[in-house]
Amino acid sequence: MQGGYTGKVLRVNLTAKTTAIEDLPEEIAVNYIGGAGFGLRYLLNEVDPKTDPLGPGNKLIVSTGPLAGTEAPCASRMMFTAKSPATGAVAMSTTGGYFPAEMKFAGFDVLIIEGKAEEPAYLWIKDGVASVRNAKELWGTTTFDCEHLLKEKLGDQNVRVACIGQAGEKLSLMASIINEKHAAGRKGLGAVMGSKNLKAIVVRGSNPVKIANQEMFDQARARMLQAMKESPVLFPEFAKLGTPMVVEATSAAGIFPLKNFAATGEHDFVPGLGVEASLARKITKEYCYKCPVGCSQVKVAQSAPFTGSMSVPEYETYYSFGGTTMVDNVDAVIAADRLCDEFGIDTMSVGATIAFAMELREKGILTQEDTDGVDLSFGNAEAMVTFVKKIALRQGFGDILADGVRKAAQKIGKGSEKYALHVKGLELPAYDVRGAKAHGLNYATSYTGADHNRGYAFQEIFSIPVPYEVDRFAAAGKGKLTKWNQDTRSVCTDCAPMCGFLLDMALPAICKENTADLVSAATGLHFTPEDVYRVGERCNNTAKLFNVRAGFTRTDDDLPARLKTEPLKEGGAKGAIIPQAELDLMLDEYYAARGWTKDGVPTEDKLKELGLM
Amino acid sequence: MQGGYTGKVLRVNLTAKTTAIEDLPEEIAVNYIGGAGFGLRYLLNEVDPKTDPLGPGNKLIVSTGPLAGTEAPCASRMMFTAKSPATGAVAMSTTGGYFPAEMKFAGFDVLIIEGKAEEPAYLWIKDGVASVRNAKELWGTTTFDCEHLLKEKLGDQNVRVACIGQAGEKLSLMASIINEKHAAGRKGLGAVMGSKNLKAIVVRGSNPVKIANQEMFDQARARMLQAMKESPVLFPEFAKLGTPMVVEATSAAGIFPLKNFAATGEHDFVPGLGVEASLARKITKEYCYKCPVGCSQVKVAQSAPFTGSMSVPEYETYYSFGGTTMVDNVDAVIAADRLCDEFGIDTMSVGATIAFAMELREKGILTQEDTDGVDLSFGNAEAMVTFVKKIALRQGFGDILADGVRKAAQKIGKGSEKYALHVKGLELPAYDVRGAKAHGLNYATSYTGADHNRGYAFQEIFSIPVPYEVDRFAAAGKGKLTKWNQDTRSVCTDCAPMCGFLLDMALPAICKENTADLVSAATGLHFTPEDVYRVGERCNNTAKLFNVRAGFTRTDDDLPARLKTEPLKEGGAKGAIIPQAELDLMLDEYYAARGWTKDGVPTEDKLKELGLM
Repeated sequence: MQGGYTGKVLRVNLTAKTTAIEDLPEEIAVNYIGGAGFGLRYLLNEVDPKTDPLGPGNKLIVSTGPLAGTEAPCASRMMFTAKSPATGAVAMSTTGGYFPAEMKFAGFDVLIIEGKAEEPAYLWIKDGVASVRNAKELWGTTTFDCEHLLKEKLGDQNVRVACIGQAGEKLSLMASIINEKHAAGRKGLGAVMGSKNLKAIVVRGSNPVKIANQEMFDQARARMLQAMKESPVLFPEFAKLGTPMVVEATSAAGIFPLKNFAATGEHDFVPGLGVEASLARKITKEYCYKCPVGCSQVKVAQSAPFTGSMSVPEYETYYSFGGTTMVDNVDAVIAADRLCDEFGIDTMSVGATIAFAMELREKGILTQEDTDGVDLSFGNAEAMVTFVKKIALRQGFGDILADGVRKAAQKIGKGSEKYALHVKGLELPAYDVRGAKAHGLNYATSYTGADHNRGYAFQEIFSIPVPYEVDRFAAAGKGKLTKWNQDTRSVCTDCAPMCGFLLDMALPAICKENTADLVSAATGLHFTPEDVYRVGERCNNTAKLFNVRAGFTRTDDDLPARLKTEPLKEGGAKGAIIPQAELDLMLDEYYAARGWTKDGVPTEDKLKELGLM
Repeated sequence: MQGGYTGKVLRVNLTAKTTAIEDLPEEIAVNYIGGAGFGLRYLLNEVDPKTDPLGPGNKLIVSTGPLAGTEAPCASRMMFTAKSPATGAVAMSTTGGYFPAEMKFAGFDVLIIEGKAEEPAYLWIKDGVASVRNAKELWGTTTFDCEHLLKEKLGDQNVRVACIGQAGEKLSLMASIINEKHAAGRKGLGAVMGSKNLKAIVVRGSNPVKIANQEMFDQARARMLQAMKESPVLFPEFAKLGTPMVVEATSAAGIFPLKNFAATGEHDFVPGLGVEASLARKITKEYCYKCPVGCSQVKVAQSAPFTGSMSVPEYETYYSFGGTTMVDNVDAVIAADRLCDEFGIDTMSVGATIAFAMELREKGILTQEDTDGVDLSFGNAEAMVTFVKKIALRQGFGDILADGVRKAAQKIGKGSEKYALHVKGLELPAYDVRGAKAHGLNYATSYTGADHNRGYAFQEIFSIPVPYEVDRFAAAGKGKLTKWNQDTRSVCTDCAPMCGFLLDMALPAICKENTADLVSAATGLHFTPEDVYRVGERCNNTAKLFNVRAGFTRTDDDLPARLKTEPLKEGGAKGAIIPQAELDLMLDEYYAARGWTKDGVPTEDKLKELGLM
């Protein structure tokens, strides 16, 4: 590999109100490419794994990569990295929109935000110049209002804003960071911003991103567009339906979770949450910067009392405010989703936490009196929407739920832990992994907790035979597959950066080549597909090192007891279960594939091989 | 007067989807100056006074004037004119923000919108080019969301949007037109837009407004700024508190209406709605284009369940969602105001209509069952906010209330008419005019119904002795005063155009001179202060002609029975009342001052004098 790439890092100390610009070391560019790679590397280098995630010792790293802001399709992505207050492990969450491209136009690949502002502050970055400004008047506002106020204040309607809402201010461990309705949703990164008294980051730039080898870039881009065109699902299906199209697939496969994972299977939920109901609410679609797909399906609720609420609910939100809460009503899903975006809180964890409370109600552990007189029962749409707001604002019993299922169970006691479904403190995503075992192993081993995005097993969910065909119910072979999924995803999606949906739906067979070609052309560095894959592996080892130093062991690479002890009762995955023995088998295989010890710790050899020691 | 002013009129036929550009006739510029003058003239010329206000025969005229988009302070104002579906008389409503200036930059003084689009449409105007576009995908959205979607759709964050929300789509007779939180609130103009299937008007322009005589303009502007500087209330008081500062003044004077005008006087509402509570919620302020004052006080609700709601509630809204509904809670006022702006409905009429329903509940005419199980009692903040949404969306009993008190009383019957307080179908504003009689006479005679803005009696409300000192309880002399108030307001505020608050607070003594100087300099036409005053008189006569032809007579120039038969029971205006005899006396004096017949019809002589026949 040869040099040439010149990235810039903006270091901001909120305590001292100072900003400094650093060159991105070429060693980091070569070894990590961009995005999450940069975030993980700086996190490991600079943050004490034992630090209080909500203390000034934590750092919030905002990073994007070499493809953001270029003509590469679907590459306006950025990553937020910190120590997670929800899990205590690495938090890394990605988001799209226009902000990532604009951040590059403003001159930066990485923002490292340190310390804690004395008073509410926002960070304003314009064409290489940064300042920490007072945000007292923005405190207490929703993310939508905050964006509006900042545009007015700065006299520029074209700034891009990433900010927290009231949930982040109130340090909810489910708080998200929102930029124009796009969420860096999970792992409580909004609370990290809140703990730093940082209400918003605003960027504006006018410098185009330089391409080292334009001809090579154009050719790689043309190949990528061709692959997208040839995808059997990207156009028109995914472009028309967005992620909610997955409801029918997972329902048919018996892995769309219902009732806090106590039920599943084919069921009568599809009419309420399926394609027809979705299309009836769709009014338009929206595009991220330079995306030809536009998967954001803008929907408006049509029935009282939710009428008129507008949002872009994704598949995961159909699960969290639909299936798992047993609310067979897409209008309620839209309304709950909208509130989450406004208050800046994760739709997935909030819905999962409400489902947890609903199960406690059903089991008699909670009464209606406990929940502020609200009938928080499975299927009660209004109660669910009421509680979204209560949780985000920490009102009444919402305060008990505001930090997710693990903390809530600790406060409620009475055996409620049994119904708190999470991995490492992160609530489960929208797949019942008893019927998709590599996906389950990924939940158990992802460096962020139960995270569907770090190693999405599209082989099991969509029967795509890349890199090979798999049996979703089998445990054997899933260790290697999970490594492949995590490493390709980590680099092609999280570092390049690029939208994860492309990897699943259009590029699985060529994702490493595609990333190698585009990133090499953009940066002038030379990456082979093998280099790329190695970067993905390096990312996962870098994150794992942080987690090991934070105190995580093999016993944390676990799944909730319900998935290990209760077979699925009906539907397309009837009888499926992941007993502890099977999980152990998969973990053994996974650790071996990774070159880690039986306890899940990277070996010296592996670390040396990856240049990590 | 000599020529030189070249205004442009855009004529849009929604039925035919055609647009045409016309020169503004110099005769209209000379005789009407701009804004409401243009609107009233075109309405009288082109709309049948007997036409169905919600039929395709009505026209929506959007007009601004020669000062909009110039450096004149506080002149970014525009006027919407049509036949009102709420009153059947002229509807004319003004609003500010940035849209009016942008409309001038786009090249137009007047938009005349005719017919009815077959499908939902929006009007897009950019630098002299206009088109009618499909808005099917915008239908059903809130005004905030509609603005966002249009900016995305047009790929330009700097367009300015005036649109309707769900209330306008559903033809609520209280529906407003919203541009960036600024409302053309009253008289159901949002329903006129809705009836035409016109969701939004979008403007973008880059042509500066030409000034005919720059030196003269600069001097006039300097004199105006000096007068503003010397105002005893504009800075810092009004700039810091905005219109809500009036709550304490009217409370002390005993004319802040409580309980649907059944109570008033000094009361314990001030702590809940007064300066201290207001300032505690204030987070920032916002400015209209070229306004040095910034009276828009942005507030965030602080208490559950309203926490986090952000809005700019004005004094009138403190009355409608505060005093008259007996809700002593500024957070509820903010939340209700926000919903009104989102759904596009008038805060004043909605609050007044809810207060009417609350009184019916108190009197036993309505039960809790009638109101969808909601306890719609005086003082119930949550019930009030719930009903704002129900009304705007015509849900349940909200549908009965959605067309204001007059229509609701017709539907409810059982003697409810007695509690329906309105003039010509327009609900009462925030002044108990039993203690401010010129203001009351203005309610009775304004060409738009009970409208505080068409002839605001600041002499009575703020004891400003211009053009002379008055006794607010006296009836004698109020006919002439009301003519002066209506004519100066009509021209200085509604035609120039200029913000009405300036007239009340900074310029009362020089308003005609100020308008004459600035408008003459801007247009190259020559106006004396007498010419200006005459334009104001011409506006009121033009509107009156329309109303007479629509069938309005002296008996319509009335006040609600409660104000004529029930003396105020307590406070600073205790015992005050406007008996019919006193109203008759004032009407006689007013008609005489106007040169109208005893029946309130303009005489031939007067019309000839004003060039109206």
